[in-house]
Amino acid sequence: MACQQRAIRTRDSILETVAGLFNEVGYEAATIASLVERTGLTRGALYFHFPTKEAMARGVLAHAVTREGISPQEYKLQEWVDLGLVLAYRLPREPLLRAAVQLSVDPKARSLFGTRWPDWIDVGQDLLGEAKKRGELLPHAVPEEIARLVVGAWTGVQLVTETLPDSPGLAEEIARLYQLILPNVASPGVLAKLDTSPHRPERLLRPSEGPAAPGA
Amino acid sequence: MACQQRAIRTRDSILETVAGLFNEVGYEAATIASLVERTGLTRGALYFHFPTKEAMARGVLAHAVTREGISPQEYKLQEWVDLGLVLAYRLPREPLLRAAVQLSVDPKARSLFGTRWPDWIDVGQDLLGEAKKRGELLPHAVPEEIARLVVGAWTGVQLVTETLPDSPGLAEEIARLYQLILPNVASPGVLAKLDTSPHRPERLLRPSEGPAAPGA
Repeated sequence: MACQQRAIRTRDSILETVAGLFNEVGYEAATIASLVERTGLTRGALYFHFPTKEAMARGVLAHAVTREGISPQEYKLQEWVDLGLVLAYRLPREPLLRAAVQLSVDPKARSLFGTRWPDWIDVGQDLLGEAKKRGELLPHAVPEEIARLVVGAWTGVQLVTETLPDSPGLAEEIARLYQLILPNVASPGVLAKLDTSPHRPERLLRPSEGPAAPGA
Repeated sequence: MACQQRAIRTRDSILETVAGLFNEVGYEAATIASLVERTGLTRGALYFHFPTKEAMARGVLAHAVTREGISPQEYKLQEWVDLGLVLAYRLPREPLLRAAVQLSVDPKARSLFGTRWPDWIDVGQDLLGEAKKRGELLPHAVPEEIARLVVGAWTGVQLVTETLPDSPGLAEEIARLYQLILPNVASPGVLAKLDTSPHRPERLLRPSEGPAAPGA
């Protein structure tokens, strides 16, 4: 068991390194030689975990859809917003997530591995559909369309934000995106109660650092 | 003069072909050999127009920011919407425009050539700033932020739309994006008069095919 855990840790650590190189030069330009050099492993050791560059890309993409940091909220719409806010906070800190976006926008990699966008759209559609049932959305809001548009918008805002010289942080920019869209999605009573602060992800991911519970 | 025009036509036709290959395999994977083969020119003839692959990429990007099809409208906000709608109509029909987006999202190409996103943001900011002066925007709308967010959102919606199996057309999807955002941007009186139909670009680009003018 200890052995298996060590293998998983090694695997994850290789993927982090691989992801970093994919981010810097792109999938196509990342050579096996440069991957070997970057990981500091022997070619044989690297191949033991990932026999091909394709296997590494698949390993990166397997980490792309994550609900880490998301917990049940009074409003399903808040959970949907949390999904995008938390990812915006995590992405600049986690090369694996950034590499997964890069693999999706790279035409060569995309033709080989597809993208995880349909999975993200499904997750969003489920949350928005449930929100709709609960009366949290405006009557004309179509969960399927909004889920699809926002996966696209989120991805593009991330790409543009990371290239702009004096760009705001990604969490700030994604928070603004939700603030722009939500008045045309949420019913007025719910809109007033949604938290779209760019500082929300920090609070969600480190709940233990919040004020102590009464009696604690 | 005839000679010069022929040279420009040849140059544009090479760029179209190059753009097609960039779209299929990405910038990095496009080899000079495959570019020579695809254009059907000799290596010497190709080099006469574009001495390097880098020069070809710069040529593609030079075509990226275009106002073709945009004409002055009663509302500046309508011109801003037209910019995005017309581009959404043109992009699937013009490999050059699609390749310019691909070069911007490709990390290697981007590190070499930058992107045209700042230019698009400037164009949008000018139009939205003028719209704001004329009272077409809601009081809290910040032209700079909206211009930046929508360049990102537009780009991502395009990327995701082209990968989804049963995806709607890009013009339909971009029209939905504006319909989602505009109620939180436009003042109510202007909102009611904006045309965000996905069929608008066709009408803008082919005005001669509209109904005949009275007395014509």
